Amino acid sequence: MIRLFVPNPLAAGADIAPSPEQTRYLTGVMRRAVGDQITLFNGADGEWRAVLAEVSKRGCVLRVEAQLREQAIGPDLDLVIALVKRGRLETIVEKATELGARRIRLAITRFTNADHTNVERLRAIAIEAAEQTGRLDVPQIVAPEKLDRLLDDWAPDRRLMFCDEAGDARPVLEAVTGAGGSSWAVLIGPEGGFSAEERERLRAQAYVTPVTLGPRILRADTAAISALTLWQAAIGDWRELATP
Amino acid sequence: MIRLFVPNPLAAGADIAPSPEQTRYLTGVMRRAVGDQITLFNGADGEWRAVLAEVSKRGCVLRVEAQLREQAIGPDLDLVIALVKRGRLETIVEKATELGARRIRLAITRFTNADHTNVERLRAIAIEAAEQTGRLDVPQIVAPEKLDRLLDDWAPDRRLMFCDEAGDARPVLEAVTGAGGSSWAVLIGPEGGFSAEERERLRAQAYVTPVTLGPRILRADTAAISALTLWQAAIGDWRELATP
Repeated sequence: MIRLFVPNPLAAGADIAPSPEQTRYLTGVMRRAVGDQITLFNGADGEWRAVLAEVSKRGCVLRVEAQLREQAIGPDLDLVIALVKRGRLETIVEKATELGARRIRLAITRFTNADHTNVERLRAIAIEAAEQTGRLDVPQIVAPEKLDRLLDDWAPDRRLMFCDEAGDARPVLEAVTGAGGSSWAVLIGPEGGFSAEERERLRAQAYVTPVTLGPRILRADTAAISALTLWQAAIGDWRELATP
Repeated sequence: MIRLFVPNPLAAGADIAPSPEQTRYLTGVMRRAVGDQITLFNGADGEWRAVLAEVSKRGCVLRVEAQLREQAIGPDLDLVIALVKRGRLETIVEKATELGARRIRLAITRFTNADHTNVERLRAIAIEAAEQTGRLDVPQIVAPEKLDRLLDDWAPDRRLMFCDEAGDARPVLEAVTGAGGSSWAVLIGPEGGFSAEERERLRAQAYVTPVTLGPRILRADTAAISALTLWQAAIGDWRELATP
């Protein structure tokens, strides 16, 4: 079943005009025809069954039929990721979406060697990953900010899991389980790690939980995926049984 | 510090001729010159400091000086991964190496639509990832086998963590902690999942521990990384404090 994110309100009987890209995908790539069903979500109104009601040269019409799932939102988990090379950053956005991050913030740190990225492209990747993974929302992608600025404005009731390559941090499962709090963020540094000043500032904050990700050196994308996985398994939405 | 895998025995005073690719990397890409130090490992003799002793048109010589680390091996963890698209398979090999898998076995299942892959290319990726991640060994890459054949020959003292998309499996942390055993494998299916017959056969084996990887649909590469991470964190070598 094809699953598409649309910006429109969803309600029974509504007619939706998908974007030109979605139309090409539906009718060109996937060869869907009038009468075929697809699934829609918009991040607000849950998941709906729709039917391809019209196909013409000018586009197509999706008629919304019935709600399949009520809107729901996962745990309050952000990812703060230093800018890394494009390919790895795109992997991280795709995976963070699958792993249920609610928001992805891009950080400029001492050892990042870029200060911008194609945020629109990352948003498109997040939408595609959300469609594929079955989420009812799309993670927000926040444009790059300096790490210092980001910490200046940090709301102290959001705990920050700081993946510290150096130092004597505790394993994630142990560290986060006892830390309390339900709003969290995971912080992953650039390939060159954090500077001494950055580490010192982070470690001095009461809201920071330093953690280690095992005895081997991980690339930034691996570290992000592993850290989000462990958080979800320890205190997030991976604790329940699968639904049969 | 550059870190290279070599097939040669390593002992103080030994002279090593790196491969043409390694020579190009050392002297061309990384601009190393006579007198510069690099680190070598071979999967058997630990990690050694070496010095670039000669550079000529015909190649270069690395002189082995002193052992930096004794040989050590991580937990006994295999990954069994169904053949998936090339890009994702390469990601999986890189990440499984970082996450300490000792062996990567490629499986042909009912819903894989390929029966071969470039194993030599995957081996090269594993070597590069081992060099980068600081391992003292390189995971073995085993050429594709049919899943049925692989299960026919399964040694029942190796537990198999079966990442089951359907069904009522338990979360990984809970399932593996109580399962006992020190030899394990993680099994990840193709994007289309396992067939009903495959699931039935797997679930009937005493050595199989079915697990769930959370409420969202994961791509095969994400599932592999998450599953290996959780195993390492629950009963592998991620349980200890980081070394300061």
